[in-house]
Amino acid sequence: MSIYDQHLDKTAANFVALSPVSFVERSAEVFGDLPAVVHGQRRYTWAQTRERSARLAAALRALGVGRMHTVSVMLPNTPEMVEAHYAVPALNAVLNTLNTRLDAALIAWQMNHCEATVLITDREFAPVMAPALKILREQHGREPIVIDVCDSEYTGAGECLGSLEYETLLATHAPLPTLDGPADEWDAIAVSYTSGTTGDPKGVVTHHRGAYLNAVGNAVTWTMPQFPTYLWTLPMFHCNGWCFPWTVAMQAGTHVCLRRVEARAILDGIRTHGVDHYCAAPIVHSLIYNAPPELRDGITQQVRGMVAGAAPPAAMIEGMAKIGFDITHVYGLTEVYGPAGVAAKRASWAAEGLSEQTRLNGRQGVRYPLQEGMTVMNPETMAEVPADGQTMGEIMFRGNVVMKGYLKNPKATEASLAGGWFHTGDLAVLESDRYVKIKDRSKDVIISGGENISSIEVEDALYRHAAVAACAVVAKPDPKWGETPVAYVELKAGASVTAEELVAHCKGLLAGYKVPREIRFEEIPKTSTGKIQKFQLRERAKSTSAIE
Amino acid sequence: MSIYDQHLDKTAANFVALSPVSFVERSAEVFGDLPAVVHGQRRYTWAQTRERSARLAAALRALGVGRMHTVSVMLPNTPEMVEAHYAVPALNAVLNTLNTRLDAALIAWQMNHCEATVLITDREFAPVMAPALKILREQHGREPIVIDVCDSEYTGAGECLGSLEYETLLATHAPLPTLDGPADEWDAIAVSYTSGTTGDPKGVVTHHRGAYLNAVGNAVTWTMPQFPTYLWTLPMFHCNGWCFPWTVAMQAGTHVCLRRVEARAILDGIRTHGVDHYCAAPIVHSLIYNAPPELRDGITQQVRGMVAGAAPPAAMIEGMAKIGFDITHVYGLTEVYGPAGVAAKRASWAAEGLSEQTRLNGRQGVRYPLQEGMTVMNPETMAEVPADGQTMGEIMFRGNVVMKGYLKNPKATEASLAGGWFHTGDLAVLESDRYVKIKDRSKDVIISGGENISSIEVEDALYRHAAVAACAVVAKPDPKWGETPVAYVELKAGASVTAEELVAHCKGLLAGYKVPREIRFEEIPKTSTGKIQKFQLRERAKSTSAIE
Repeated sequence: MSIYDQHLDKTAANFVALSPVSFVERSAEVFGDLPAVVHGQRRYTWAQTRERSARLAAALRALGVGRMHTVSVMLPNTPEMVEAHYAVPALNAVLNTLNTRLDAALIAWQMNHCEATVLITDREFAPVMAPALKILREQHGREPIVIDVCDSEYTGAGECLGSLEYETLLATHAPLPTLDGPADEWDAIAVSYTSGTTGDPKGVVTHHRGAYLNAVGNAVTWTMPQFPTYLWTLPMFHCNGWCFPWTVAMQAGTHVCLRRVEARAILDGIRTHGVDHYCAAPIVHSLIYNAPPELRDGITQQVRGMVAGAAPPAAMIEGMAKIGFDITHVYGLTEVYGPAGVAAKRASWAAEGLSEQTRLNGRQGVRYPLQEGMTVMNPETMAEVPADGQTMGEIMFRGNVVMKGYLKNPKATEASLAGGWFHTGDLAVLESDRYVKIKDRSKDVIISGGENISSIEVEDALYRHAAVAACAVVAKPDPKWGETPVAYVELKAGASVTAEELVAHCKGLLAGYKVPREIRFEEIPKTSTGKIQKFQLRERAKSTSAIE
Repeated sequence: MSIYDQHLDKTAANFVALSPVSFVERSAEVFGDLPAVVHGQRRYTWAQTRERSARLAAALRALGVGRMHTVSVMLPNTPEMVEAHYAVPALNAVLNTLNTRLDAALIAWQMNHCEATVLITDREFAPVMAPALKILREQHGREPIVIDVCDSEYTGAGECLGSLEYETLLATHAPLPTLDGPADEWDAIAVSYTSGTTGDPKGVVTHHRGAYLNAVGNAVTWTMPQFPTYLWTLPMFHCNGWCFPWTVAMQAGTHVCLRRVEARAILDGIRTHGVDHYCAAPIVHSLIYNAPPELRDGITQQVRGMVAGAAPPAAMIEGMAKIGFDITHVYGLTEVYGPAGVAAKRASWAAEGLSEQTRLNGRQGVRYPLQEGMTVMNPETMAEVPADGQTMGEIMFRGNVVMKGYLKNPKATEASLAGGWFHTGDLAVLESDRYVKIKDRSKDVIISGGENISSIEVEDALYRHAAVAACAVVAKPDPKWGETPVAYVELKAGASVTAEELVAHCKGLLAGYKVPREIRFEEIPKTSTGKIQKFQLRERAKSTSAIE
């Protein structure tokens, strides 16, 4: 045995399981007097937020919640949602954040699947949660304990569904002395269901180690300073807000809560509270740069936004640059805790024109510093594709910021982690600087005459037309070519354009075989999180192809 | 068994042992064309630095180096020193960085103690390494393989001690395909000997997990952006350069090497290479702010320095502020991988005057975000002292950034990690904002008439006199009071002051019982790392007390 393996074991002094809960204790301990949460008229310091979280933890423990029990929450971006992210992990329990846009059947399905024993729900969602709980009871025989949140900032209707009220619970339970992480950092911290465009949703199980490392990785990637003021435009139910509830805790920042994502509320929040950081989907960024300029009056601080999205429209990146917001483009999935890749800005990019900067920043980029691997591989051979900007492969991740797997779904877990890499299902190329550029979801590629057509590339061309509000390009079966691209298009209010004009527009931007053979002006179906449901469009294209 | 404990095991896709070596691979992979190392006329990109490190690793492996073998290095801050930090851990071997100021006997003692099998040594140190190797061979029967570094930037004398030359080795070994971390992140990464003012040195054993986390912690604490230009004023032999060899790798920065720490070389380096970050002891900062102002001409970038030191003279913090360098004051020890506490700057401090800011910034502060605990405790009861700024206790750390222990010294390990905390041996108070303020080393406290006198507080008062260059205050046995403070003082060149004047100066700043009873103008003995050897002064004070 080596001299270094003797008498040098782990002790309580030199080994602590990694858990993002640790950041809450630190900020409460050393920055307890600084603001932690702002929500309408409500204000909490870090000491208060820690205390409220520790009271919630004590209350949940009194209700029987312990290691590996599931606590579901149906909450908008409120203080209670922040507190759930601190209290539930401190009990070694598992947080299940429900997507607030789901219907009752899907909610019941998920809560049954993850065997939720407690539900914390905001009154606003009573209309969907009441039937969800009914299904859960009648079809699955489950009756979770229900805690109602009556947020003073919510003025709408909505009944209480349970016999416990959040603030009363907090008032009647003394706080736990400390919010501790688990003994084993591999323990589950959360289960989040992917919205799934086909089949049953999958429950992505993440762990304390990964949540800790990605919370840190967010700050490192973004060079986020101490004491940021962070606006909650991104739903916390979405991959635990990309781990930012914990990143903000680490940096002793201020969570600025927001029940509704609207341009005026966002820009008022940014102005009033001096917000300097936020994350959001491309659609929210569009709200911001398309808002009337006077809504931005009085915003003098540098605002930095993080945006994810398989392929954010170039117009979005340019739009944000024009209003002076500094945008960092990240890439990820629920399976990698939100963002795990970043279009890391090289110093040399600053010398490029806006359009080239937009192209460079619009890529999926490179791995987060705390992720171990991100590349594009041939999923059959698991060989990396050449960095030629041409050869398509599948984006793969490897490292500590990859989920444990899918709950109760070993087959899907095994397939997704096969060969020592997490398979994202996104098709991409490696450009010459080794930055990843997404081309498509595997199943969205159109194969026409033996050539692969990236539906995203065609959509990008369509988006460059001023009249196009939304579009989706899918394959339509074709007896001669195998498949051909067909485009579904929604126009901006008041705009008009003909199919012929759009085709001509595309011909100016794309190789001939990539130009849509048909343009259909129809409403485009979307999931509850705003993702376009291409499988529905494919069905539609297929079923109508015979009669055209 | 819980549903979360089934079919959700670790795989190669979602679990990788933490190791800072990972950062080198990332920067080589995605920023391979960017500069990594600058040294005189030598320039290496990240791809080249990775390749050189992988060649070194291959060469060492060919020489038989494997898991838990010790590789000693006697190197100044050169590219070879950087490469050793990347290559040795990638072999799962242990890096022992020798203090270049030690004498042959101490070097031999350390290399024997850690059972070094290979030595990499710069020609400059041949005069001390030759006798060290002779002692090692003759007294201990050890003959490590010796690799000589012939740095082209070194123009002095110095023979080659071995039969292997560094560049030749690199040229004749194909690089390892990847620099990988170990299977177990708890494995030792380095052994560093504390200089020790009494008794045998202790070999502090650190591990990959801690080195990874503190490398990240440095960047988070300092809000260090991507692509920093980092000047090596801090010796890398000192706690592995506080983990900055790995922090700079994570941020794909540039290491600017420096064989000699002199004011002109430092300021020329800062100007020429656009240095924006450096770390150093207070004495180096003094060199900078005391340098002729014209040496700073042409430095226009914001330069940020990190300084550690039990109690940096207020004059140093003020001096740096006046020349516009932004200083972050950190606190740590070899046992916590360098800095693990920081005087984290609150926004409200900016409104204070320079002297109050200096006082606030001069404290040891709060734990790094990635450290789990730092506080002041009564070492007998292990109870935290009240945050009253008065009650003294011992500074303690807890968390993943604490050493494994002392090599072959279970007794010292156990004592230092007793009660679940690492005992620093530094005495301090908790101020009302919970920031730690050091008062003294336990053994340096002077107890006079039952009152504790902090020798640092008295020294601080002396340093405020313009004529004082260096000073040390120690206890002298006294039949009436038990002990009384006696001050040893070195004056600045050309300055003069009498003992009476210094006593009067102290009376204006200190309570009467703290004022030195004697002032002795004598040379002050220092260790090889510049620490004042108070034990020698105590002996001197004791032996001369009878005759005065």
